[in-house]
Amino acid sequence: MLSKNKIKHIASLHQKKQRELRGEFIAEGTKLVMELLNSHFEATGIYATSEWFENNRLPINFTGEKSIVSMNEMERITALYTPSPCLLTLKTRNVVFNASIANSALVLVLDDIKDPGNLGTIIRAADWFGFRHIVCSEQTVDLFNPKTIQSTMGSIARVNICYRNLETMFKELDGTVKVYGALLDGTNMLDKELSDAGIIVIGNESRGISETIRPYISDKIFIPSFHPDDLSGGAESLNASIANAIICYEFRRNRMISK
Amino acid sequence: MLSKNKIKHIASLHQKKQRELRGEFIAEGTKLVMELLNSHFEATGIYATSEWFENNRLPINFTGEKSIVSMNEMERITALYTPSPCLLTLKTRNVVFNASIANSALVLVLDDIKDPGNLGTIIRAADWFGFRHIVCSEQTVDLFNPKTIQSTMGSIARVNICYRNLETMFKELDGTVKVYGALLDGTNMLDKELSDAGIIVIGNESRGISETIRPYISDKIFIPSFHPDDLSGGAESLNASIANAIICYEFRRNRMISK
Repeated sequence: MLSKNKIKHIASLHQKKQRELRGEFIAEGTKLVMELLNSHFEATGIYATSEWFENNRLPINFTGEKSIVSMNEMERITALYTPSPCLLTLKTRNVVFNASIANSALVLVLDDIKDPGNLGTIIRAADWFGFRHIVCSEQTVDLFNPKTIQSTMGSIARVNICYRNLETMFKELDGTVKVYGALLDGTNMLDKELSDAGIIVIGNESRGISETIRPYISDKIFIPSFHPDDLSGGAESLNASIANAIICYEFRRNRMISK
Repeated sequence: MLSKNKIKHIASLHQKKQRELRGEFIAEGTKLVMELLNSHFEATGIYATSEWFENNRLPINFTGEKSIVSMNEMERITALYTPSPCLLTLKTRNVVFNASIANSALVLVLDDIKDPGNLGTIIRAADWFGFRHIVCSEQTVDLFNPKTIQSTMGSIARVNICYRNLETMFKELDGTVKVYGALLDGTNMLDKELSDAGIIVIGNESRGISETIRPYISDKIFIPSFHPDDLSGGAESLNASIANAIICYEFRRNRMISK
């Protein structure tokens, strides 16, 4: 059984301010919980039904708190609409990496992604296509938001993510680094040679790439659309996480053809 | 000012059962509202602030109800977290089309997509890549769910969408129609020749393509992943709307290279 204080503590982690104060976040659902238990994140507590503990084994080096909770209690701590039988609390981590890694690898830069589900989906697709580094602008939604964590489906354990002031970062960059950005006045990305290293900037859901960031884009690209018929118009844009995935795919595509 | 009954009526359209009973749905936000006002959907009412009416012009053939509402009233009828200054009610439409269109065009088939945001995002990407026909299984989330409508960003006006029993539909198909489906034991789609006509099946978010539908798949494909380093594992799967967009992109890619 959980104490009132413990319920209050865990439920408080739904809020960004409390996550920052306590340096903790939550993850729910067996698949995600097991993946994060076996990652480099430090788990501080596991809260699950007795049935869950019977069917799942904790790693031997697990040193956090272990509590059997009822589904009634779970409803009071969950951030999900329908609670899962297990909830993990973990320490947040601040990854710091030097943007000069863009000299040798592809780095995603997120310019104010606001929707937690989009951020999680971007991280998951980045992981699928082997992108190991993401830099988020300071106004990007919190990585440790429960909705972001859930939608990464565990990919958060395999991608390095740091928050930085983007202008400061761009100023520090070596002038030879290619900076790709999806912009309306860009070139069809299928007509360009895409590099194996550099930066790819993904803009905000409503306004795209910020005015202050545009001067740093060396290679403007766009994702072509297709109109097989005479219908006037068509979608004006793609969802940010969709655009990100298609760009990541295209940058890796030539390397993924097996024959 | 809105009557209590009118507020109740509009708010009831947040629920599927009421939408079906009344044959109406809602759309919010200036961009989406203007796009649907100028589409083949029949608008039954527009509810907006006086400022909105000053700045936006209704089509001359608009015959629905027009009401000036305060932001306070808007809060009682909106399905959004933060209400927009305008809300449109429209008549639902049941599109019916013969699946034999797959003999000459690419048709998307959605096998139990459950998340309204995913459904909307799939429709938006389909529109971008010129897919004009989507068949949803009967268990797919309701097209007229406010979250679906919002995330189509207006693409719902340009894509024909019908709900059908998928097994019945597959049985009716001419045996020569190619049926592509993303499955774990499929072929890397980059190693296959992709046709200009046929069906592409997108599976449910958690279980992929149903057991009952798999026998109808003639061409199993998968989206390759990429691992530049020795990191064990990687994401196990992609979000359904991401997978859909990448597959749509790949089917159109050769036609979109401009040089």
